[in-house]
Amino acid sequence: MDPVALAALFRAVRSATDALAAPLSPEDQMLQSMDAASPTKWHLGHTSWFFETFLLERPGEARRLAGADRIFNSYYQTLGEPLPRLGRGLLSRPSSDEITAYRRAVDADVLRLLAGDAPAKTLALIELGLNHEEQHQELILTDIKHALYANPLRPAYLHDRPARDQSDRQDSTSPPLAFREFGGGVSWVGHPGSGFGFDNESPRHQVLLHDFALADRLITAREFADFIADGGYRRPELWLSDGWQLVQAEGWRAPLYWELRDGELWHFTLFGMQPCALDEPVTHVSLYEADAYSRWAGARLPTEFEWERAASGQSLQPQVESGNFLEARRFHPQVAPAVASKQSAGDETKSDRPLQQLTGDVWEWTQSAYAPYPGYRPAPGALGEYNGKFMCNQFVLRGGSCVTPARHMRVSYRNFFPPAARWQFTGIRLAKDLIPSC
Amino acid sequence: MDPVALAALFRAVRSATDALAAPLSPEDQMLQSMDAASPTKWHLGHTSWFFETFLLERPGEARRLAGADRIFNSYYQTLGEPLPRLGRGLLSRPSSDEITAYRRAVDADVLRLLAGDAPAKTLALIELGLNHEEQHQELILTDIKHALYANPLRPAYLHDRPARDQSDRQDSTSPPLAFREFGGGVSWVGHPGSGFGFDNESPRHQVLLHDFALADRLITAREFADFIADGGYRRPELWLSDGWQLVQAEGWRAPLYWELRDGELWHFTLFGMQPCALDEPVTHVSLYEADAYSRWAGARLPTEFEWERAASGQSLQPQVESGNFLEARRFHPQVAPAVASKQSAGDETKSDRPLQQLTGDVWEWTQSAYAPYPGYRPAPGALGEYNGKFMCNQFVLRGGSCVTPARHMRVSYRNFFPPAARWQFTGIRLAKDLIPSC
Amino acid sequence: MDPVALAALFRAVRSATDALAAPLSPEDQMLQSMDAASPTKWHLGHTSWFFETFLLERPGEARRLAGADRIFNSYYQTLGEPLPRLGRGLLSRPSSDEITAYRRAVDADVLRLLAGDAPAKTLALIELGLNHEEQHQELILTDIKHALYANPLRPAYLHDRPARDQSDRQDSTSPPLAFREFGGGVSWVGHPGSGFGFDNESPRHQVLLHDFALADRLITAREFADFIADGGYRRPELWLSDGWQLVQAEGWRAPLYWELRDGELWHFTLFGMQPCALDEPVTHVSLYEADAYSRWAGARLPTEFEWERAASGQSLQPQVESGNFLEARRFHPQVAPAVASKQSAGDETKSDRPLQQLTGDVWEWTQSAYAPYPGYRPAPGALGEYNGKFMCNQFVLRGGSCVTPARHMRVSYRNFFPPAARWQFTGIRLAKDLIPSC
Amino acid sequence: MDPVALAALFRAVRSATDALAAPLSPEDQMLQSMDAASPTKWHLGHTSWFFETFLLERPGEARRLAGADRIFNSYYQTLGEPLPRLGRGLLSRPSSDEITAYRRAVDADVLRLLAGDAPAKTLALIELGLNHEEQHQELILTDIKHALYANPLRPAYLHDRPARDQSDRQDSTSPPLAFREFGGGVSWVGHPGSGFGFDNESPRHQVLLHDFALADRLITAREFADFIADGGYRRPELWLSDGWQLVQAEGWRAPLYWELRDGELWHFTLFGMQPCALDEPVTHVSLYEADAYSRWAGARLPTEFEWERAASGQSLQPQVESGNFLEARRFHPQVAPAVASKQSAGDETKSDRPLQQLTGDVWEWTQSAYAPYPGYRPAPGALGEYNGKFMCNQFVLRGGSCVTPARHMRVSYRNFFPPAARWQFTGIRLAKDLIPSC
Repeated sequence: MDPVALAALFRAVRSATDALAAPLSPEDQMLQSMDAASPTKWHLGHTSWFFETFLLERPGEARRLAGADRIFNSYYQTLGEPLPRLGRGLLSRPSSDEITAYRRAVDADVLRLLAGDAPAKTLALIELGLNHEEQHQELILTDIKHALYANPLRPAYLHDRPARDQSDRQDSTSPPLAFREFGGGVSWVGHPGSGFGFDNESPRHQVLLHDFALADRLITAREFADFIADGGYRRPELWLSDGWQLVQAEGWRAPLYWELRDGELWHFTLFGMQPCALDEPVTHVSLYEADAYSRWAGARLPTEFEWERAASGQSLQPQVESGNFLEARRFHPQVAPAVASKQSAGDETKSDRPLQQLTGDVWEWTQSAYAPYPGYRPAPGALGEYNGKFMCNQFVLRGGSCVTPARHMRVSYRNFFPPAARWQFTGIRLAKDLIPSC
Repeated sequence: MDPVALAALFRAVRSATDALAAPLSPEDQMLQSMDAASPTKWHLGHTSWFFETFLLERPGEARRLAGADRIFNSYYQTLGEPLPRLGRGLLSRPSSDEITAYRRAVDADVLRLLAGDAPAKTLALIELGLNHEEQHQELILTDIKHALYANPLRPAYLHDRPARDQSDRQDSTSPPLAFREFGGGVSWVGHPGSGFGFDNESPRHQVLLHDFALADRLITAREFADFIADGGYRRPELWLSDGWQLVQAEGWRAPLYWELRDGELWHFTLFGMQPCALDEPVTHVSLYEADAYSRWAGARLPTEFEWERAASGQSLQPQVESGNFLEARRFHPQVAPAVASKQSAGDETKSDRPLQQLTGDVWEWTQSAYAPYPGYRPAPGALGEYNGKFMCNQFVLRGGSCVTPARHMRVSYRNFFPPAARWQFTGIRLAKDLIPSC
Repeated sequence: MDPVALAALFRAVRSATDALAAPLSPEDQMLQSMDAASPTKWHLGHTSWFFETFLLERPGEARRLAGADRIFNSYYQTLGEPLPRLGRGLLSRPSSDEITAYRRAVDADVLRLLAGDAPAKTLALIELGLNHEEQHQELILTDIKHALYANPLRPAYLHDRPARDQSDRQDSTSPPLAFREFGGGVSWVGHPGSGFGFDNESPRHQVLLHDFALADRLITAREFADFIADGGYRRPELWLSDGWQLVQAEGWRAPLYWELRDGELWHFTLFGMQPCALDEPVTHVSLYEADAYSRWAGARLPTEFEWERAASGQSLQPQVESGNFLEARRFHPQVAPAVASKQSAGDETKSDRPLQQLTGDVWEWTQSAYAPYPGYRPAPGALGEYNGKFMCNQFVLRGGSCVTPARHMRVSYRNFFPPAARWQFTGIRLAKDLIPSC
Repeated sequence: MDPVALAALFRAVRSATDALAAPLSPEDQMLQSMDAASPTKWHLGHTSWFFETFLLERPGEARRLAGADRIFNSYYQTLGEPLPRLGRGLLSRPSSDEITAYRRAVDADVLRLLAGDAPAKTLALIELGLNHEEQHQELILTDIKHALYANPLRPAYLHDRPARDQSDRQDSTSPPLAFREFGGGVSWVGHPGSGFGFDNESPRHQVLLHDFALADRLITAREFADFIADGGYRRPELWLSDGWQLVQAEGWRAPLYWELRDGELWHFTLFGMQPCALDEPVTHVSLYEADAYSRWAGARLPTEFEWERAASGQSLQPQVESGNFLEARRFHPQVAPAVASKQSAGDETKSDRPLQQLTGDVWEWTQSAYAPYPGYRPAPGALGEYNGKFMCNQFVLRGGSCVTPARHMRVSYRNFFPPAARWQFTGIRLAKDLIPSC
């Protein structure tokens, strides 16, 4: 990306982050409700420290805010002892104001760099920093949602839901579920090389796929409620062993944020407690719940490469633009569009529609453990800790969510979370093997 | 207390609380660093809820702040399910401003009551509420000290130590330690009946004491450092079994807040990290450390009744006024005064001086488990949960500390904490048996 | 005790221990079901190591069984690092046979000592060792009861209950509960000096008691079942705060070992699962349950000195001999005898009967925290760790149980357990204050 | 397999299990040192319950030993509530003798079935039961090794190491490490269909491999000691994030069972503590340690399909017969043979030798997460719980170990353990990408 365009992007991404924090008071920005989540103010500081550390100073020498090195290092062991995660919620100092000043100081210095004759490596680092910041934009929203829910008063992040526009489908009905078939064979996966990509998307390489089918939309809250009504959370035979133990230990009986009030289903959203529209995609389920649901439904979760193969085959561009991403400011998945089908009367479960909700709405759990691609090598130095060291005990998710910046998504993008995680906007797309009946 | 005096006291106590919170930003007031401590804003809300609940409304109906009943009930099981303690740190809403408004609304209503023809029972409840609030004043300071210390930047509660006055003895030398003897016999203990007292100080009753001696001042940091240098934290024979396990599990090697920097002893104070004056009383030690120290010193901890007997025998009034209480705003114990002694040359360890530092400075651990007095009966209803249900696995402390309001202290006052607690201003006074040598 | 009598006692106590282990296979003797309990074979080895260590060799040099020092040191930190408690259940080697051989080797050497001209200090140590072994006799039975209950097949320690003799009262009815009054005043407590006593019973000293009354028998299973039926385990206002937390966390709903089968109450005994005779004393309750029951019953638990005062006033000797101790081999508390009362018709709750079940049957929880007597000083050296270091977070129990050797009991005997302990034969005697009605 | 051959195999496998238990006393057979391991006697009972449950009775009706259903069900949720794992160590009853009798009763009934006209499904279930029992043979040895090590006396399973034969190489020197290259392409993996295989090896399917190289022998203790000496356990950049946390939390500094005594390396073996021969393969390392080692060595772990491709390409038969499996009774990996190499002088790191130690010795960690093969479907009913529900948070290991029965191994065999597991005989074979240098 050329320096001018990059400077514009830098300004846009940085202010988008500020805008996400704007509805939150300094007190709200202190909240940390669990080890895996961080306070908003920490996200604001950490993303600035990232630029300062990797771009502006020699690592370990951040100087624009006293102590930044000791409190905003997330997990870079090679840059000194990171603060224990739960300590992030105890940082009343520096204040929100001081962190804002820190952000502005970093902004100025980065933009000064971009105004000069910055080498390609610098430009690449800035682009990395912006993609890193976009990841934290998503986390700001998922973390604050979890934190506000921990308050028994269930306060809202935003009070006014955006005025409905014509693309809002919350009152409409989800189309019937059907499966679209894909032929197997050798397929290219991974980042194609042009444009930004994280190291975990590379090297681009070939994989061998077997014939498969993917559901043409996401599983809805109504369908998931059927699973619950059918004893889904009480039947061990549907669950992975680790998942069943967790269900017992945690007393899980429904997705995170669901509450039954007088027989009606409500859920917590960034707009506070709301009645749950049953046609919208189910979200805030763990891999364990997604996997158990798929077994109950006689299907399975897709592999990450099946998803990528399917996504490569259809134009995502319209979806990215019109899709339900962060910019739509719905902050919640929405009902799948009723797309005209050319489906033959003969088999109602075979779909000839393009796959709906493939990007945006919710991250789709895959059955693929997060692992390095053949030939993967992490970057040297501290940046090598960005992705590689987490390739263990996590699963890949694909497609982005309603709180992912649209620009951030791409077909080769690999998100990853432990199988027990529920506080992200995670959901379910089913897959099936295509095996000749015999 | 008559209504006019009580109204004046009410105004004074309530504003004293506000004044303690004043140096803290709304972000600081969010901090909760452990289960046993609470955020400042919670203290501000809870003390107001206490008046509202027990005085202004029928229990369970607090109405001056929406949701107050669900977030400010500390532990009154009979008033509904209290919020889990660690949830107190997740209350960004209501905001500090809303809690301040809540305080003012409660103030106005209580003062209106007092301006009317309030019955004695109402006056008594108000007096209870003020003593309750004074307890939380102390907790505001000890809790925020602990919370600020959890920040690796070690920020200060206050930046400017008060200008030294003539009563400040931080640079002076502690007098030598000597023991003052007391004869045994039947002695009255407990609240005498006139003036306010908590239910755990009653009924006043007789106890039988055996001859004993008490150290005429508190143990100093220097003396405690000698214990450490002599292997105090590495010698199991000095410790109670539970204490030794804790030393191993927690890696304790010194009192809480002590840090060695380049061979010099520093400690964390409400004014930030400071060099430790070795002649001042050691503080922030658990009962286990106090007990181990006393065993190392060939002495023991006093019983609560030995302390009360000794305190009854000497005029505390001057000490209370001039003592090192909250109002002195030192927020730290200070060196014992060099009092002229009439001590004979013959035995340097026998003291004829009045006991120094008996009130204020630090709470003195006693060897007495916190137990009900003979005939003790908790109040009916929710207020019966105030003290009685904690009479288990705790030890009594006597004398108040440098963050206790002077008015709050009295000879019969019983404070209590679990033996592992270190975040209060707790210290050590030695005792000895007087047994005819044979 | 003279050497000849002591030798006879030594033989008797040591074989009594062997007899308790006899019904257990080497596999049974391996069982350790929790940290607080020990396997039978460990008790057999440890009690021998005790004699060897304190009597036969210099501490740290046990030589009659290789490795004895590393596996049979219970908690004497001054004798080297004790094996972590849970490791006791992993000692398949040495085998039961080797431990038996170890016992015999120690026996021979101790008896040889006694046959010679042993000094008084040696005799005293042997007597201590025998009293120590009697404590472990009780633990062998309570620990194996807990361990066998952990097996879902609920196997029995013994299959045949002893033939009923005339003193067996399991089918009889418990007499009505009444309270016997005692006047207060200065009273002597503690070991009188002649005969054996543990150091925690000394020094004998005076205490001041206030008028009180004690229930004339133990609380029965029927009475405790009434407490349960009245919501005892669901009403927080009846419980100490720590106890209520435990009830919630552990899901306690009844005493340990109680099970409801088709509406009938069964309990686990050393003879396997048996129907529970409702007139027999309730047992296997924690201090928390005993305290909550007493509050529900409008009474309280006695102090240890009230118990001692009452016990001193009545002849215990007949009870000790005929009492329900280990030697009766009932291994379970039995129904109180129907003693003729001279009680006036006027007040049915006032008793003029001697207190029943004061010794044997079940240990009686007192409200007294386990603390040192005035002037208490632990023995020098490792034996000083016997009692003193546990004087924290425990409560005193008095009177012995159905698995205590009769010889082991005395009026000044202080047993102690943490308030949550339930696997000992612990029960409830109520007390009341006597306050002039007004 | 025909009934006659199967009956012979049944007898052989069942007695082989008995023979493994023979050196252990009933007390030894009680030992359970952690949740993940089981007592020997439980293995003996469970493997019999498996035949009884799936072959001889309707599930849930085992009748040859009272209570077998409640204590020997490992994890089959569809057959009733399994005993909590740690409860396995508390089963003194049934006794070892009773379990032996149970085994004989089951043997007789199975052999009676085989003597009759058993249908193919019955024969298949018996074959499954025998393969299941072989898995437990391995566990009997690894579990007892862990349990005996928990005893501070470090007792041995066997006292006499087998007499050295000519195939014993413990004193020889390991050949230099070199890598053998393999071309990529589409490759068949999975069970070929004839002969026994577990369901997790199917369906056989094609995968696409990229060019790779495998080390021609296992990593030795000496090489791993070099890694330690180079700070391996102190350098976070070498570790997966979860692994680094574990290293910190557990204080890992070497493989399990290694001990330094006076500067010499010893390790615990089934023959007790022994000096460690540095040329033998390192074992008892977790996936985390294997992965960190490989990163330190500039290599990586193989995928399970790379291993299978390499193993398919070379004749395993000689190795299986002469290999270091259970039948060799070495119970420990041994030094790689010095095989003549045709290696050109030019590149010492390129191997043209067949891969050594590919089967037997130690299980080789792969970087492949344990996941279902495309089209995998678990069996219906309880047997469907055998493998499928564990396909999460585990890694695949290949090749068998020195305690695996030789018959049990095959090229498509997939073993799996969590990445933190160290008590199995697990070791390291390195892999490398082959990428055109540029």
